[in-house]
Amino acid sequence: MEMQGSAVDTLLGGIEAGGTKFNCVVAAGVDDIRERASFPTTSPEQTLSKVAQFFHESSQRHGAVSALGIASFGPVNLDPTSSLYGYITQTPKVGWSNTDMAGYFSQALSVPVAFDTDVNGAALGEHLCGAATDVTNFVYVTIGTGIGAGIMIDGKLINGSMHPEIGHMLMPRDNRRDPFNGNCPFHDNCLEGLASGPAIENRWGLRGQHLEQSHPAWDLEAEYLAVMCVNLTSCYSPQRIILGGGVMDQTHLFDRIRAKFLSLAGGYYPQVSESNIKKYIVAPKLVGRSGEIGSLRMAQHLYNNKNVIA
Amino acid sequence: MEMQGSAVDTLLGGIEAGGTKFNCVVAAGVDDIRERASFPTTSPEQTLSKVAQFFHESSQRHGAVSALGIASFGPVNLDPTSSLYGYITQTPKVGWSNTDMAGYFSQALSVPVAFDTDVNGAALGEHLCGAATDVTNFVYVTIGTGIGAGIMIDGKLINGSMHPEIGHMLMPRDNRRDPFNGNCPFHDNCLEGLASGPAIENRWGLRGQHLEQSHPAWDLEAEYLAVMCVNLTSCYSPQRIILGGGVMDQTHLFDRIRAKFLSLAGGYYPQVSESNIKKYIVAPKLVGRSGEIGSLRMAQHLYNNKNVIA
Repeated sequence: MEMQGSAVDTLLGGIEAGGTKFNCVVAAGVDDIRERASFPTTSPEQTLSKVAQFFHESSQRHGAVSALGIASFGPVNLDPTSSLYGYITQTPKVGWSNTDMAGYFSQALSVPVAFDTDVNGAALGEHLCGAATDVTNFVYVTIGTGIGAGIMIDGKLINGSMHPEIGHMLMPRDNRRDPFNGNCPFHDNCLEGLASGPAIENRWGLRGQHLEQSHPAWDLEAEYLAVMCVNLTSCYSPQRIILGGGVMDQTHLFDRIRAKFLSLAGGYYPQVSESNIKKYIVAPKLVGRSGEIGSLRMAQHLYNNKNVIA
Repeated sequence: MEMQGSAVDTLLGGIEAGGTKFNCVVAAGVDDIRERASFPTTSPEQTLSKVAQFFHESSQRHGAVSALGIASFGPVNLDPTSSLYGYITQTPKVGWSNTDMAGYFSQALSVPVAFDTDVNGAALGEHLCGAATDVTNFVYVTIGTGIGAGIMIDGKLINGSMHPEIGHMLMPRDNRRDPFNGNCPFHDNCLEGLASGPAIENRWGLRGQHLEQSHPAWDLEAEYLAVMCVNLTSCYSPQRIILGGGVMDQTHLFDRIRAKFLSLAGGYYPQVSESNIKKYIVAPKLVGRSGEIGSLRMAQHLYNNKNVIA
């Protein structure tokens, strides 16, 4: 590593580990990307070894990374005192339960590894240079195949004993208006079961991108997401809620969610009003890059701490 | 204050400021209470001046307190950068909106004042010497006139930009089973509107203590509180949920809530199972004392920090 010269050239690695693909990056900073690669998520053996091979080969072109950040799909084990720290735990993603992510790359690449949820990685990215640079209390939600959130309170991402699973909060549902029971294997009426991308497809028989803006699907979706925003406001008292993920590519949802939020909240929350709702419920700014930037930030943070300690 | 002699005799003051009464305490430690007093909550002018008078008179008997902790009903302003820090803000409690609590006592008693919500005070007390001494991630909920929670994550109470208001999360409700629309002036279907003490009384026409254990009120109440526990588990991933407040004096509710929690959670949360549910959803241990101990702990913490800085 001494061969890299000055600290300016310290290289960091990032992995955004998703259920569909693994995005990898080598960089000397978020604005100094040296190389990117993406691999489809197949079996753990195949996927992890391809990713490791990329970092090995990249190190011959650019130098070795000094630290690696992994922002992973989950559920994951984030308890540093657990023997399963850095694992993907029981996941519906076939073949991936009990996969040692942090340990694998720490061994294969001989680098220190920072490990967190995909949503925490994205939240960090948005905080560093996206839609949440001016606040220290916010929630980043992804609404896609699943629904999950990264939550920052007073500048720190919070996990609790495992990590939040806000997709499984139980929701008000009017059975007459929405007879669809949700597609979560664990719960009737949970947020993810009612409002994720697959829920939209299962309820209406068409994927979201094939439903017109006038389809009743969208008013219902906006209502569920507005209830979610009220409950997130009640639970975390954030300064902002960022809504990302594939479902939010339907950008017409934002104004519908904002209007329903105001009506459901009933003026109760002093921090949110008609005059600032557009700054309260917002889109991500780093579309497609929040995970990359977040994972690099995790690596940077780990590298800095190691160097301070050493 | 030098007259008090050694640090062992440093006196601390605590106020548990409730909507019904203000409980005051002077102590040299949680096990060394020197004096207690309680005053009914009438107008702010009358109540605050009586409390100040108590501390003045007490100082002649025991010596002056070196710091004061206030655990207050709310909503309150906890933003140290705000000119309204330490105030009760817009509250339904008549006459109490915009009352400067921290400033009043800081001036009247010439002491440093620590200020927080009543539920954070109670949570601190339970963490210090009650039902949460062995965990650093937990939620303390009070279910009484209102519903509120103190939330500890990684050993720190979290507030966000204001403070959580979990009583206003929106809830699933079966209109046929429960046609009562809730008694929250802001929301249909919020937790507090459906499950607080006054909600029970308004729905059934009798106060909870006059309803028999076999009354359908209790199964419905247990179901709402079980949904709440699922949602708190989803949002905070705690190691324990403590349920306090007047409604939980109906101790038969605990087993009903636990059973419904397990059924609603559907085995999704690895940290909770049939074998440990009795240690997951629990009663407070400091019944009647958690606010007192919490407010003293706040005063102690402030005193220690001031002395370290000085």
